[in-house]
Amino acid sequence: MPKGIPETVPDDGLTTRQRRTLPITAVHTGPGKGKSTAAFGMALRAWNQGWPIGVFQFVKSAKWKVGEENALRVLGASGEGGTVDWHKMGEGWSWVQRDIESSEEAAKEGWEQVKRDLAAESYRFYVLDEFTYPMHWGWIDVDEVLAVLKDRPGSQHVVITGRYAPEALTEFADLVTEMTKVKHPMDAGRKGQRGIEW
Amino acid sequence: MPKGIPETVPDDGLTTRQRRTLPITAVHTGPGKGKSTAAFGMALRAWNQGWPIGVFQFVKSAKWKVGEENALRVLGASGEGGTVDWHKMGEGWSWVQRDIESSEEAAKEGWEQVKRDLAAESYRFYVLDEFTYPMHWGWIDVDEVLAVLKDRPGSQHVVITGRYAPEALTEFADLVTEMTKVKHPMDAGRKGQRGIEW
Repeated sequence: MPKGIPETVPDDGLTTRQRRTLPITAVHTGPGKGKSTAAFGMALRAWNQGWPIGVFQFVKSAKWKVGEENALRVLGASGEGGTVDWHKMGEGWSWVQRDIESSEEAAKEGWEQVKRDLAAESYRFYVLDEFTYPMHWGWIDVDEVLAVLKDRPGSQHVVITGRYAPEALTEFADLVTEMTKVKHPMDAGRKGQRGIEW
Repeated sequence: MPKGIPETVPDDGLTTRQRRTLPITAVHTGPGKGKSTAAFGMALRAWNQGWPIGVFQFVKSAKWKVGEENALRVLGASGEGGTVDWHKMGEGWSWVQRDIESSEEAAKEGWEQVKRDLAAESYRFYVLDEFTYPMHWGWIDVDEVLAVLKDRPGSQHVVITGRYAPEALTEFADLVTEMTKVKHPMDAGRKGQRGIEW
């Protein structure tokens, strides 16, 4: 647990108060579990601050995260804390009315909406779940992502999850955590369990 | 994301269905962020299953986790999903009426209650937050913890977080994830931020 005492004081001309509201870009990567789970755990803090939250799931099937989705939807509708919008690529993005031809096109449509929302400051906290993959596969240009993140207005925090985070992204990010798999039940032949895996 | 296909089939005489309800012991350890956060993210799934959840915070100050606590309390009281009991060592355990002399005594009182709850099957999902430390410091006997976990009745899942997880614990656990710090804003002289760190 951080003690709140930075080891160095940056020479950036900012006050501590200014630094406290800088937008954070966080990346959860690596082969271990907990990348998305920790992002949704962070969303609980954002919710508690009363911040509007936008989740964009860049995966075709969302079946593994139904627990987090239901919980965050209930929190968002509770009248306490922030609101929650949950966008799923797997069901077709809600704002896209026509048929989407391919996963690549779907990923690109998702990114276009994230850009619009960042420009409009629609949310204060974004989870771009499994967003590393369309970058890793070359569908979405990493340099463009970094340029958009760098120039985003206000204090909008963005958490990106997934394996194979591009090096330029981890260099750019403020907070990078790698989840390493030490041991997993499936190594011992156990299948995914209700309430644990989803 | 696991594909649900185990690499080996264990020779344990159990059916897949039986293996699916085996109690899971998970450990989140390592120097990186996200150990507790991922545990509370897992609790969202347990909540979605309608399971009673017990959180035991083995820390003196709970100020860093107020967001997760508020969110899980709202979820627990929502009438949907499972119930949530949140026990804090930092405020004195609610079931201990007398003054507690030391952190060591407080940690031991917490563990005694966990043992009672496991024996009574009070919860289906336990977060023993920062429970590695009292083991690491020798306040709570690791062998006793393992014996209690090994013999716990029913299908009670237990997630233990904190640095310095004892080797015997990680050997015993079904699921071990190490969170590695790659980069943290405080390395650049930025202090903890509202909505991100707490």
